[in-house]
Amino acid sequence: MRLHKALLLSSTFIITTSFMVVPESPAGTGTMIKKEGIESRNEEWAKHFPLQYNSWKQTSQSEKIIDMLEKKPQLAVIWAGYGFAKDYNAPRGHYYALQDNINTLRTGAPVGPITGPMPTACWSCKSPDVPRMMEKDGELEFFTGKWAKYGPEIVNTIGCGDCHDSQTGGMALSRDYLKRGLEASGVKLDEITKNDMRSLVCAQCHSEYYFKKTPWEDKDGNKKVAKVVTFPWDNGLSAEEMEAYYDDIQFKDWTHKISRAPMLKAQHPGYEIFKTGIHARRDVSCADCHMPSSVEDGETYTNHNIQNPLDDIDNTCLSCHDQSEEEFRTVVEQKLQRKEQLMEIAMDNLAKAHLEAGKAWELGATEEDMADILQDIRHGQWRWDYSIASHASFFHAPEETLRLLAVSNELAQTARLKLVKVLAKYGDIAYMAPDFTTKEKAQALAGVPLAKLVEEKKRFKATLVKEWEKQAVKNGVLNMDSRKGMSDKSSYSN
Amino acid sequence: MRLHKALLLSSTFIITTSFMVVPESPAGTGTMIKKEGIESRNEEWAKHFPLQYNSWKQTSQSEKIIDMLEKKPQLAVIWAGYGFAKDYNAPRGHYYALQDNINTLRTGAPVGPITGPMPTACWSCKSPDVPRMMEKDGELEFFTGKWAKYGPEIVNTIGCGDCHDSQTGGMALSRDYLKRGLEASGVKLDEITKNDMRSLVCAQCHSEYYFKKTPWEDKDGNKKVAKVVTFPWDNGLSAEEMEAYYDDIQFKDWTHKISRAPMLKAQHPGYEIFKTGIHARRDVSCADCHMPSSVEDGETYTNHNIQNPLDDIDNTCLSCHDQSEEEFRTVVEQKLQRKEQLMEIAMDNLAKAHLEAGKAWELGATEEDMADILQDIRHGQWRWDYSIASHASFFHAPEETLRLLAVSNELAQTARLKLVKVLAKYGDIAYMAPDFTTKEKAQALAGVPLAKLVEEKKRFKATLVKEWEKQAVKNGVLNMDSRKGMSDKSSYSN
Repeated sequence: MRLHKALLLSSTFIITTSFMVVPESPAGTGTMIKKEGIESRNEEWAKHFPLQYNSWKQTSQSEKIIDMLEKKPQLAVIWAGYGFAKDYNAPRGHYYALQDNINTLRTGAPVGPITGPMPTACWSCKSPDVPRMMEKDGELEFFTGKWAKYGPEIVNTIGCGDCHDSQTGGMALSRDYLKRGLEASGVKLDEITKNDMRSLVCAQCHSEYYFKKTPWEDKDGNKKVAKVVTFPWDNGLSAEEMEAYYDDIQFKDWTHKISRAPMLKAQHPGYEIFKTGIHARRDVSCADCHMPSSVEDGETYTNHNIQNPLDDIDNTCLSCHDQSEEEFRTVVEQKLQRKEQLMEIAMDNLAKAHLEAGKAWELGATEEDMADILQDIRHGQWRWDYSIASHASFFHAPEETLRLLAVSNELAQTARLKLVKVLAKYGDIAYMAPDFTTKEKAQALAGVPLAKLVEEKKRFKATLVKEWEKQAVKNGVLNMDSRKGMSDKSSYSN
Repeated sequence: MRLHKALLLSSTFIITTSFMVVPESPAGTGTMIKKEGIESRNEEWAKHFPLQYNSWKQTSQSEKIIDMLEKKPQLAVIWAGYGFAKDYNAPRGHYYALQDNINTLRTGAPVGPITGPMPTACWSCKSPDVPRMMEKDGELEFFTGKWAKYGPEIVNTIGCGDCHDSQTGGMALSRDYLKRGLEASGVKLDEITKNDMRSLVCAQCHSEYYFKKTPWEDKDGNKKVAKVVTFPWDNGLSAEEMEAYYDDIQFKDWTHKISRAPMLKAQHPGYEIFKTGIHARRDVSCADCHMPSSVEDGETYTNHNIQNPLDDIDNTCLSCHDQSEEEFRTVVEQKLQRKEQLMEIAMDNLAKAHLEAGKAWELGATEEDMADILQDIRHGQWRWDYSIASHASFFHAPEETLRLLAVSNELAQTARLKLVKVLAKYGDIAYMAPDFTTKEKAQALAGVPLAKLVEEKKRFKATLVKEWEKQAVKNGVLNMDSRKGMSDKSSYSN
């Protein structure tokens, strides 16, 4: 239901936040959910906030799996050697965040609490049990060990306790790594406004991060190494500024399996690229568009069915933009098409650059031949990934997205130009990258043993995951009712 | 002086034209300047519209010459073999349009009415004497022969008679080629509104065109060939649509001197790219921003000192955009920087592609080796030129500009990739394009005999041009007072 129509007063627009109905506030709603600690069970919050809870629960309707590797097979090539080449679906609603993390082939098939492949940090954005366990074990202990270590504890999907304080009910940052990232970027935490919070609670997860190896000693004197989620914001939030941060510390997420380039994986710098756009510039918050005020039985509440605003265009975009839905969609569609065109071009050339580099190694190219080529590939793919890995960057920051995709492609093509010369030097001027136009072909090039991974994953789900659930119910941290009717789809079992 | 602040009601904004003070209208102002025919002398109009005339005269203050070939030496390489490689300055105000056309080395140094190099069509956008002569001689005769043929007639710079009807005073299209272009693109001329006219009078000159060879027979039965200004709008106004038009008729503006590519020169598709942007989409006209309403001695008039709205930001942009001048400038500056970055990248690679193609020919490459490379260069440079040749495309259509520059560069790099292979085939895998980082070096590569051109031009100005002036004064079409104090600068004599 449409509640307000803000006067449109600026370059793209201004929403003054006084127009917004914000039932939550940093000072709290006055509703205590739990006397102390974090309440991670969304059903407990439901008792106090049924309207918000019911709207949140509607994210369960976003159940469709879109296999991005089927849709864009180039991805498997450019991520060869990294988990995303195994399995990557378009994100579903918050309700599925945890389930999809367990289902994805990226998290593998551990057989016990100390088997990999992933570290505990891979739970970070999936559940309000994460801050609960950080509070319980300490943040460094939380970030130490393998993902499976917390299987029986991280059992409630993204929900109330991720963004709200269990004592006051108000908005709160439950992840200290965001606070540290903000401070590193120059933000003074005590100057954060209520309106800022309406984006920052989202930024806890919708941001770029890396796992920083952090040696530490526990209270018993045991030497441990934590992998701490860290935002690379010291130089600023732009693609170039974050890249400089990573280059300075010579960080890589992985070594590319085909090209051997020291790669960065942009993990969804949604908040960062949003900040470069006109909506952020006009102080529009994430919640303004993704969580419109709604009314039910005369009560006003913030809709927690977070989704694409275009799915509820009358209640979202058109609250500020006074035009027809059709006209609005046409303009947005043009933005999308422009991004799609440049994205495809860059992605295609990046994939070819990896394959041509692989061929160069095969023919005997030296580290010296390849060094700056691999750096071009690293930098080009970083820009491509930064500009498309976050949700709807084409809308949040269309010009920055197009700029980055253009420069990404320039770097990919520069690498390819150098590679033709290297290939010629080693006797092959006619080399053409092999066909990667289907997921099957691309995964074969990337060396992904898909059938084996699926089989292992299925076993894992039938065994260890079941144990985790049982233990969690027994410990009182999971209410199995919360999973009733949950669609358990994945790319390998629809 | 600020007259109005339009309510901002849409995605970027809507100005409803009822807010605009439009003293002229297609129906006319009721002021007759001349009983019949076209009054091309701006001073005659001044007697009836002193405020408009005085503001138009202020365009004479835009006297500075910015030598773009000094600023961007790559230009001389990518335009090698074409006039623009000889001389290209940033445009000055309307007051200088005619003078700059005479001064530029592009129009050469004819010694009599039938010497070249340029055809009569090169006057088309420079003077209200153009429609006067078209009316007198007929359009086909006007477009027949060499530029110098009309030297004694085309003597008043762009002014009143270009956009206004001498009988009614109202806005009018004085160039039939725009009407034909609009009809070819599907516009019904009888549906053109007053608001449309506030852009279309500008579009007469600020559009892409080519010279269409048109055989005809005069009333005495003489067979002639006219070169008729024609807008390539049959498929639409986008870069791709116009390119398809040119490809279909296998048109080229020139053969590139270094690469031998069949080139297109985008001549300033300002109207076309503006139409792809949000201002046009919201029915904002050129005049809305470039000709704000002004008041002097209590009289309201449209300011004819057409310039960058940012030079009068309070009276233009901020009439609709309610924000600080500083904030507005910051946002616009970002748009400019993004365009500059992608423009430089594309321009640089296009220049290298031409030079590498030149080397390939030198080494013995065949037509077959080169055909699709030259097509890539043609298409890449067309997109680059379309997206930057018009004034402020980065502002009028920032996303379309970035998209086109990105694709331009992709095509340039694709050509270069193929060229490395061709060069390798003919034995040179190490070829590096020579240095073109100064105007002197770039013009040397382009084979421009600058000193000779300048010398000839100076002679031409001291002789033939003086004769033209004398004759025009004698014939009563030129009032020399109109040139009093005119700054006669050029790239070769500042």
